[in-house]
Amino acid sequence: MAETGDEKRLPRIVHTKREIREAVAAARAAGKTIGLVPTMGALHDGHLSLVQRSVAECDVTVVTIFVNPTQFGPSEDLAKYPRTLETDVAALAKYGVDWVFVPSDDEMYPPGHSTFVEPPAVADRLEGEHRPGHMRGVATIVLKLFNVIPADIAYFGQKDCQQSVVIRRMAEDLDLPIRVVVCPTVRDSHGLALSSRNAYMSPGEREQALAISRSLRVAAELIAGGERSGDVVRQRMRQVLIDARITQIDYVALVDGDSLVEVGEIAGPVVALVAAHVGKTRLIDNVPIG
Amino acid sequence: MAETGDEKRLPRIVHTKREIREAVAAARAAGKTIGLVPTMGALHDGHLSLVQRSVAECDVTVVTIFVNPTQFGPSEDLAKYPRTLETDVAALAKYGVDWVFVPSDDEMYPPGHSTFVEPPAVADRLEGEHRPGHMRGVATIVLKLFNVIPADIAYFGQKDCQQSVVIRRMAEDLDLPIRVVVCPTVRDSHGLALSSRNAYMSPGEREQALAISRSLRVAAELIAGGERSGDVVRQRMRQVLIDARITQIDYVALVDGDSLVEVGEIAGPVVALVAAHVGKTRLIDNVPIG
Repeated sequence: MAETGDEKRLPRIVHTKREIREAVAAARAAGKTIGLVPTMGALHDGHLSLVQRSVAECDVTVVTIFVNPTQFGPSEDLAKYPRTLETDVAALAKYGVDWVFVPSDDEMYPPGHSTFVEPPAVADRLEGEHRPGHMRGVATIVLKLFNVIPADIAYFGQKDCQQSVVIRRMAEDLDLPIRVVVCPTVRDSHGLALSSRNAYMSPGEREQALAISRSLRVAAELIAGGERSGDVVRQRMRQVLIDARITQIDYVALVDGDSLVEVGEIAGPVVALVAAHVGKTRLIDNVPIG
Repeated sequence: MAETGDEKRLPRIVHTKREIREAVAAARAAGKTIGLVPTMGALHDGHLSLVQRSVAECDVTVVTIFVNPTQFGPSEDLAKYPRTLETDVAALAKYGVDWVFVPSDDEMYPPGHSTFVEPPAVADRLEGEHRPGHMRGVATIVLKLFNVIPADIAYFGQKDCQQSVVIRRMAEDLDLPIRVVVCPTVRDSHGLALSSRNAYMSPGEREQALAISRSLRVAAELIAGGERSGDVVRQRMRQVLIDARITQIDYVALVDGDSLVEVGEIAGPVVALVAAHVGKTRLIDNVPIG
């Protein structure tokens, strides 16, 4: 059911767990492998790179579009989060996606729902300190989607670095029979990491936001040049942001990629991460180094 | 692979997730249905009634024996909980069980494990008030076992009434593709609910413990006789315990069977529950009424 030549079919859109379960069960029974790409919609080339990889690697690709309310804090942007279903489906049609699962809030969280995932310890750092409950919501919806759509491989973006670490760890801790694949961050020609939230920014803010990816490049260059002090690297990253008048900085981090613990002496691969506000838009970005 | 006539095979005992996953995958690939009976061992006729039902209803039956450390509180009986593996396996052999999964603590909780299930709201009452963290541990290990052993049906005992409500609710909330079947409590000829913890009691204590099931029968008789006040029924149940000099009572409850909320006016089916200490042994029992 993967894309064949130039022949593109519209993906089938389903709204209920029952329908997508049946579709996936039928595909599995026919010996097909299943790829899952969970998204919140407002699809950009970052999402589409995951879709492309799934279509290339799996017989059947399911994309889910669900703006998950439980991962938004009370003062966050749940209401204004971009919802662009028609454009999303048109984009997915070009890639030979088989199924798009677009559940309602009630379908995923019927009245009385009260079981959650208490996410692994790595959820407590970074985003965990600035978005309490966020990773709990992410882990819960991802587990639910894994159960509704028992895929062979699930695809996530490196852009949400901590999310992917949390999901990998959850999958291991809860013995989930799924492979979690993390795909590289996609950037625009200026280096800005693609994000559905970029749509919130004015042209001036987008220009200012480039300092975030610039700070990550500075970190990579420093380390490539022999710098071994985590503190020095973090300080230089922070300076890049401040020079661009980005002052509402949630964190500038240089961490071990598995534990997400801040690195003192740089002696192996690390990840540099930034979370900061540009105008009213909160942005995150990261690069693995080494 | 179910029991055939008198021909009984020793169940195959495996200790690793990898082995039992492979066994179950092979059975599923061959079109077999899988029944799962999760236990902590020290098997009695209550457990064996679940096993019997699974063997009758499913092609392949997997029994798990794992004394789950995360469901015991720090001052509870984890260390002294009875472990009788040889006798257990001998008992299971008589029922045509196919696989017994006996993992080590490290196999189920390797170092660094830190993801848990935050159980549904119904976990907060009753046992939740007296054994904080207990239902979190139960829900977590049950979810893990469901993931390691993707069965069609999992069998639990009514004896652990709240546990079965929590597991049913978790299965619904997390979209687990498994049917949860709850089987009636098995009692000895005097009415004592079978429990691995009964082994802790002296003959005198076993005699005293009969007041617990007696109090449940009193509740059922009162309601059958037209009593409609929850308070009156709870008061009479408590009196039965006190008359037997059972004074360390964790709870005497008359609740709605789904929400586990205490019932004021009895207008439909209810469940009567008791948790109390007899000597050093904590016992729980319940009966659905109506």
